[in-house]
Amino acid sequence: MKLQLSTWPEIESYLERSRCIVVPIGSTEQHGPTGMIGTDALCPEIVADGMAEQRELLIGPTLSVGMAQHHLAFPGSISLRPSTLIRVVVDVVESLAGHGFEQIFFLNGHGGNIATVQAAFAEFWARSSFARRDSGLNLQLHNWFQGRRVGRLSRELFGDDEGSHATPSEISLVLSAYAEAARTVALQPERPPSGPIRDARDFRRRHPDGRMGARSELASVEHGRRICEAAVADALDALG
Amino acid sequence: MKLQLSTWPEIESYLERSRCIVVPIGSTEQHGPTGMIGTDALCPEIVADGMAEQRELLIGPTLSVGMAQHHLAFPGSISLRPSTLIRVVVDVVESLAGHGFEQIFFLNGHGGNIATVQAAFAEFWARSSFARRDSGLNLQLHNWFQGRRVGRLSRELFGDDEGSHATPSEISLVLSAYAEAARTVALQPERPPSGPIRDARDFRRRHPDGRMGARSELASVEHGRRICEAAVADALDALG
Amino acid sequence: MKLQLSTWPEIESYLERSRCIVVPIGSTEQHGPTGMIGTDALCPEIVADGMAEQRELLIGPTLSVGMAQHHLAFPGSISLRPSTLIRVVVDVVESLAGHGFEQIFFLNGHGGNIATVQAAFAEFWARSSFARRDSGLNLQLHNWFQGRRVGRLSRELFGDDEGSHATPSEISLVLSAYAEAARTVALQPERPPSGPIRDARDFRRRHPDGRMGARSELASVEHGRRICEAAVADALDALG
Amino acid sequence: MKLQLSTWPEIESYLERSRCIVVPIGSTEQHGPTGMIGTDALCPEIVADGMAEQRELLIGPTLSVGMAQHHLAFPGSISLRPSTLIRVVVDVVESLAGHGFEQIFFLNGHGGNIATVQAAFAEFWARSSFARRDSGLNLQLHNWFQGRRVGRLSRELFGDDEGSHATPSEISLVLSAYAEAARTVALQPERPPSGPIRDARDFRRRHPDGRMGARSELASVEHGRRICEAAVADALDALG
Amino acid sequence: MKLQLSTWPEIESYLERSRCIVVPIGSTEQHGPTGMIGTDALCPEIVADGMAEQRELLIGPTLSVGMAQHHLAFPGSISLRPSTLIRVVVDVVESLAGHGFEQIFFLNGHGGNIATVQAAFAEFWARSSFARRDSGLNLQLHNWFQGRRVGRLSRELFGDDEGSHATPSEISLVLSAYAEAARTVALQPERPPSGPIRDARDFRRRHPDGRMGARSELASVEHGRRICEAAVADALDALG
Amino acid sequence: MKLQLSTWPEIESYLERSRCIVVPIGSTEQHGPTGMIGTDALCPEIVADGMAEQRELLIGPTLSVGMAQHHLAFPGSISLRPSTLIRVVVDVVESLAGHGFEQIFFLNGHGGNIATVQAAFAEFWARSSFARRDSGLNLQLHNWFQGRRVGRLSRELFGDDEGSHATPSEISLVLSAYAEAARTVALQPERPPSGPIRDARDFRRRHPDGRMGARSELASVEHGRRICEAAVADALDALG
Ligand code: NI
Ligand code: NI
Ligand code: NI
Ligand code: NI
Ligand code: NI
Ligand code: NI
Repeated sequence: MKLQLSTWPEIESYLERSRCIVVPIGSTEQHGPTGMIGTDALCPEIVADGMAEQRELLIGPTLSVGMAQHHLAFPGSISLRPSTLIRVVVDVVESLAGHGFEQIFFLNGHGGNIATVQAAFAEFWARSSFARRDSGLNLQLHNWFQGRRVGRLSRELFGDDEGSHATPSEISLVLSAYAEAARTVALQPERPPSGPIRDARDFRRRHPDGRMGARSELASVEHGRRICEAAVADALDALG
Repeated sequence: MKLQLSTWPEIESYLERSRCIVVPIGSTEQHGPTGMIGTDALCPEIVADGMAEQRELLIGPTLSVGMAQHHLAFPGSISLRPSTLIRVVVDVVESLAGHGFEQIFFLNGHGGNIATVQAAFAEFWARSSFARRDSGLNLQLHNWFQGRRVGRLSRELFGDDEGSHATPSEISLVLSAYAEAARTVALQPERPPSGPIRDARDFRRRHPDGRMGARSELASVEHGRRICEAAVADALDALG
Repeated sequence: MKLQLSTWPEIESYLERSRCIVVPIGSTEQHGPTGMIGTDALCPEIVADGMAEQRELLIGPTLSVGMAQHHLAFPGSISLRPSTLIRVVVDVVESLAGHGFEQIFFLNGHGGNIATVQAAFAEFWARSSFARRDSGLNLQLHNWFQGRRVGRLSRELFGDDEGSHATPSEISLVLSAYAEAARTVALQPERPPSGPIRDARDFRRRHPDGRMGARSELASVEHGRRICEAAVADALDALG
Repeated sequence: MKLQLSTWPEIESYLERSRCIVVPIGSTEQHGPTGMIGTDALCPEIVADGMAEQRELLIGPTLSVGMAQHHLAFPGSISLRPSTLIRVVVDVVESLAGHGFEQIFFLNGHGGNIATVQAAFAEFWARSSFARRDSGLNLQLHNWFQGRRVGRLSRELFGDDEGSHATPSEISLVLSAYAEAARTVALQPERPPSGPIRDARDFRRRHPDGRMGARSELASVEHGRRICEAAVADALDALG
Repeated sequence: MKLQLSTWPEIESYLERSRCIVVPIGSTEQHGPTGMIGTDALCPEIVADGMAEQRELLIGPTLSVGMAQHHLAFPGSISLRPSTLIRVVVDVVESLAGHGFEQIFFLNGHGGNIATVQAAFAEFWARSSFARRDSGLNLQLHNWFQGRRVGRLSRELFGDDEGSHATPSEISLVLSAYAEAARTVALQPERPPSGPIRDARDFRRRHPDGRMGARSELASVEHGRRICEAAVADALDALG
Repeated sequence: MKLQLSTWPEIESYLERSRCIVVPIGSTEQHGPTGMIGTDALCPEIVADGMAEQRELLIGPTLSVGMAQHHLAFPGSISLRPSTLIRVVVDVVESLAGHGFEQIFFLNGHGGNIATVQAAFAEFWARSSFARRDSGLNLQLHNWFQGRRVGRLSRELFGDDEGSHATPSEISLVLSAYAEAARTVALQPERPPSGPIRDARDFRRRHPDGRMGARSELASVEHGRRICEAAVADALDALG
C-alpha cells in the first residue's frame, strides 16, 4: 500500500489497523561508469515493494536526495547538507507522528545517510527529552545492504569484489527491476581502490571512476532477484 | 532522459550538449476522498515524461515532499516547513550549478510550494548578490496547472467545477498514468466551498473532506490525456 | 492610531475594541534615477495613514528593509535574505498574537517581498499545524499596487508606461506626501526594458538605470493624490 | 541626507565623498503609562536628524523593531529574538559593505539591543576572521543615552529620578519632536523599583506599570531640546 | 603538549613540525549509580594524556558537553542538540584549519556523539565540495572504547558484563586517574537490561538506574591502568 | 562539588538542598607571548574551585571554547561564532532547567563572551516571553575580572599596566594554580597599544604580539593568590 497512491480516508482506516510506515530514503549520486545515479533511492524502493507484497504495510514517498557531498565532483550527483537533511527528516517525522504513526521505519539505501539520519532522530527525540515529555515514537533506520542475509549472500556471490560503492549487489538489485539500467562499459582497473571519505575532490582523486573497491560489472538481473529476496526478509525482520 | 536512470559519464556527455535540467517538485498531501495523496508529485512527473518524449531533456529526481502545512490535519499528509524547503531547493540548485547546469526548471505540481520555491531562488541568488558576483543561473518555476493551454482546457472541460484543490484536472492527469488511482466515492457537497488558506485545523474546518471548490469526480482518463498534452506544450513553451 | 505614538495602556484599551493591526512593510532599494530609495516603505506608510483617517485602525511600525537582493548592485540598496525576513515576520507576528491580535494585515509596498512574506505566514502557521492546535490568526498580505482601483487608475493614467519597477504610480504616491522627493533627471531610454529577475548583477545589466519598463518621469503630485485615494479604498476593502 | 529620500545616483555621489552611514536602531516596546511605544526608535531618529544638520551625513532607515523580549507582557510590545536581530544586522551590514561603506554607525536607542548588536558585529567579523581576510569595516554601536554630555545633563535635570526605563530623558527627547506624544497620567508609585531583567512575566511582576526606577512625568519639551543638543554632540564625537 | 597550557608562539613553532592536533570530545551525562557524570569527557582526556607521553602531540581543549539527549531524565545530564554540536565541531575545525592544521583527530568518549560528529565532518567537507575546492583536511573520529586492543581486553576482563553504558571499562579508566571517583553502591539488578535508545523518558523507563547491560561495580583502578594502556596504543595506531 | 565528578543520585540529592549551579565559561585564545591559550577558561575554573571551598556549591563542566573571532589570526586560537555559542548556552541552560536548577551562574573569564552570553540569555528567556509563560530561571553572568575587589586589587598591583588582554591579573591567576605556565620572554614594546576590536587581521595589525595595553610580565604566583582570593569573594557576593 503506497501512501502516494492512497487517499486520506484510506490512510485513516489504515491507522486503525497499524501505526507503522516504511519510508525509503536514498541518494542521487554517481555509482561508477555502469551504475545508475538513482541506485541508492531505487534500491530501497524495490525492497519496500517486496516488503509490501508479503505484509500489509504502508510505504511512504521516497526521499530521493540524501547526503552525498563526497560525490559532488561527479556530474549529476546532488546532495543535501547534513544540516538540511536533518531538518527534512525531522519535518517528515513530525508530520507522521501527528497522524498517529508510532513506528517510522526508514529503509535506507545509502551509507552516507546513516550518520545524518541518526543525528536527525536524536534531534527529534531531543525535543521531547528537553521538554520532559514522551515522544512515543519508535524511529528506525535500516540499511538494506547491511542485513544479515544480504551480507551472507553478497559474500557468497561477490566475495571481496563487493567493495563499498557501486557494488555489484546494489547494481544487481536495480537491474532486477529496471531492465533499461543495464550498461556495458569496460572498467579499469578491475578492482578499484578503497579509502577514506572526505571532501568531493579528494574522493574523485582516490576513486577516479567513482567505484570504491567494487567490481560493478559482476552485477546481473539474476543476482538482483536473490538479493532482493534476502533484503526483503532482512527488512521484515528488522521491522519486527 | 532521467537522471536517476543515467550514469555519471552520460551526464557528463549531456552537459556538452545542454545546460538544462527539469526538476519535478510536488507535495504529499490529501487530495479529497478520491484524489491520491501523491497527486502533486505524480503530475509533474507525468508532464516531465511527456516533455522528454518530445525533446532531449534531462529529468531530475522528483522532490515529492513539499510545503503542505495546511493539509496536516488530514491523515497521510507530510509537509516540510518553508524554511526547510528553502534549504532543500538551495542545496539542490547548488549541487546542479556546480556541474555546469545553467537552467534549472522546477516543474511544480503544488500551489503551496510557489511562494517558498520563489523565496528559495532569491535565497540562492542573494549569495551572489551579496558577494557582488554573477550567479550565471536561470532558475525557473513553472506550475503545470497555470499554463495557458491547461487553463483554457480545464475551463472548457470543467468550468467552475475545477476549483482549486483536488481539482478534476489534476486527478485526471494522475488517472491518465495510474489506472489504479481510480476511486468511486460519493462526494458531498457536490461543489465544496473555497476559502483562505491558514493553519491546518482551520483548513479542515473550512474544507471537511479536503476539496476546495472542486468536483473531483469529473476526472477521467480521457480528460487526463488531453490535459497532459496541454501541460507538456505549456511547459515546453515556458522552458524556451 | 499609530503604535509608535501610543502607550501600552492605550493599546490595551484598543484591544478591547479591535483585534486588528496594519503593519506596513516595504524595502530600501533603488528606484531608478528619480525614485526615492525608500519608495516601497513610504508608499504603504502613506496608504496606512489614509486608512487610519477613514477608520479607527492601529498602524504598527514600518518594516522598512525587505527582500531586495536583486537591487544590491545599485548603491544604497539594502536587503535581508529571504530566510532572515521570514524570521522577522514570524517574530513580529508572534509578538502581536501574544497580545491578542487576531488579524495582522501586512500592507506591502514591494513585489520582491511577496513570496517571502507568504512563506513566512506558512512558517508561522506550520507551528500550529505540526502541533495540531489552532493558530487563531488571520494573516493577510495586501500589495497596495495590486488593488483593483489602483490597477484601473494606473492603466488610465500611464497605460503601458507604468512598467513594474520605479513606476510612475509609486513615485507619484511618494510625491503626494514628500515634496522634497521631486527630481528632474533626463531618462534614457524613455521606456526601459522589462525582463526576468535573477541576481543583482544580472539585474543591473538588464536594467542599467534601475527602471523596469517604467517611465518614472510621468509621476506627479496630483496623480499621487488620486492613487492614494484608490489605494486606501482598495486596502480597506481587503481588510474587510 | 536621508537614504530613504535619496536616489541611487545620489548615493553613488555621496560614496565618492564619504564612506560613512548612520543607522538608527531602536525598539517597539512599552515605555510606561506615559511613554510612547516607539520611544527607542524615535529617539535615535531625532538625534540622527540633529547630526545631519551639523555635518554632511547619510542617515539610513530606522530599524524600529529590536530585542525587547522582556517587555512582551505589555500590550503593543514587539520583539525580535536575538538570533533574528543578529541576522538582520548582518544582512544590513553586508548590504552596505558591498556598496563601499566602511564606517557603519548604529545609533541605538535601546539598552536591550546592546548585547545582541555587539554579538551581530562579531558574527559579521567572524566571517572574515575565519576566512583569514580583512573585513575593512568599522562597525560602531553608539547608545545616545550613554554619551558623556547626556549623562551629565540627565543627572543635572533628573538625578536619581532618571531610572533606567521610560526615563524622563528619553521621553523628553520624544516630546521635543512629537507634540502629540504628551500624556498626563498619574503615576504610582512615584519612583518605581529597579531590578534584574529576565523573562517578560517576571519583568511585569517587578515593574507593574512598565517603568524601571524612572519618574517619567518629569519629562518636558524644554528638557528634550537640551538633551537632543547633548546627544547630537556626543554622537558626533563618537563618530569621530 | 596541551594547547591550553601553551602560548601562541609555541603553537606557531609546533606547526612547523606537525600539522596534527588531538581534540578530546565527551559528554556530561549520568553513568549509573557509581559512574561519574563526566566519565565520557574524562576518559578521552586520560587517553590523550597517555598519547602525549609517547609521542609529541598537541592536545586541544576537551569538548565536555556532547549529544546526550537520551540521558536528560537523569539529574545532572547536559546535552547539546545534534544541530548545535554540528555547529560547534564545524567552528572548531574551521578555527584549526585556518592555522594550518591538516589532521584533526577527535578522540571521542561517547557513543551518542558518533553520528553527530560524523555528520559535522560532512557538514564541513560539504562546504568545499559544493564550492568545488579542496578542503585539505583529514578529520578523524576515534572512539577509544572501540579500538581493537580495548575490545579484546574488555572482553577478557568483563565478558558480557561490559554492557554498553556505565561500563566497567570506562569507569575503570576514570578510576585510574581520579581516586576520588570511587563509589560503593549496591547495584540492582546485577546485570541491567540493554535496549534501543530513543527519548529520555523512554530511556529511563528501560534503564531505571542508568546502566545499560553493564556491571559497573566490576571496575577497578588496576583494570583502568591496563585499559588506558590499550586505549593509548589503539589511538596512536588510528592516528597513523 | 563538581558535576563531572559526581553521580546522578548525588545530584538528585543536591537538588533537594540547592537549586544553584556555577558554570565556568572561558575561551581558547592567544594571550600574548607569555600567557596561556587556555587562560580565560582556567581562570574561572580556579575561581570556581575557590568558591566551592567556601560554600557548598555545584560546579558544572567548563565551557572552554568561547567567542574569540578577533584572535583567530594567532595560532592556536579557537572560536565559536556568536550564533553557535548562543545555541550552546541555550542548550546547556535548558538541560539544567529541566532538572530543576533555578539559578545558573555563568562564571566568565573572557570579555569577548559577554555580549554573546547575554544575547543567549535573552534568546532563552524569549521562549517563555513569546509563549507567555514563566521561565522561573535566574541566569547570571559574572565576569570574575570585573568584580569590585578584583578591580581594586589589580589597580593597586598593576595600575595602568593592567591593560585589557593578556593582563598581569589573569596571568597571575593562572600561575597561582599552574606552575608549568610560567614563561620568561622579553616583551616589546613594554606597554603595547590598546584599540578597538574588529576582525582578526585588524586585531593582529594593531596588537602584533597579542597583548592589549598589558604588561603581562608583571604577573606572579603571589599576585595570583591575592587575585584569586578577591575573585572568589566577588563571585560569592554576586551569587548572592
Ligand atoms: Ni549506493
Ligand atoms: Ni494538488
Ligand atoms: Ni517599488
Ligand atoms: Ni527606552
Ligand atoms: Ni560513557
Ligand atoms: Ni583573557
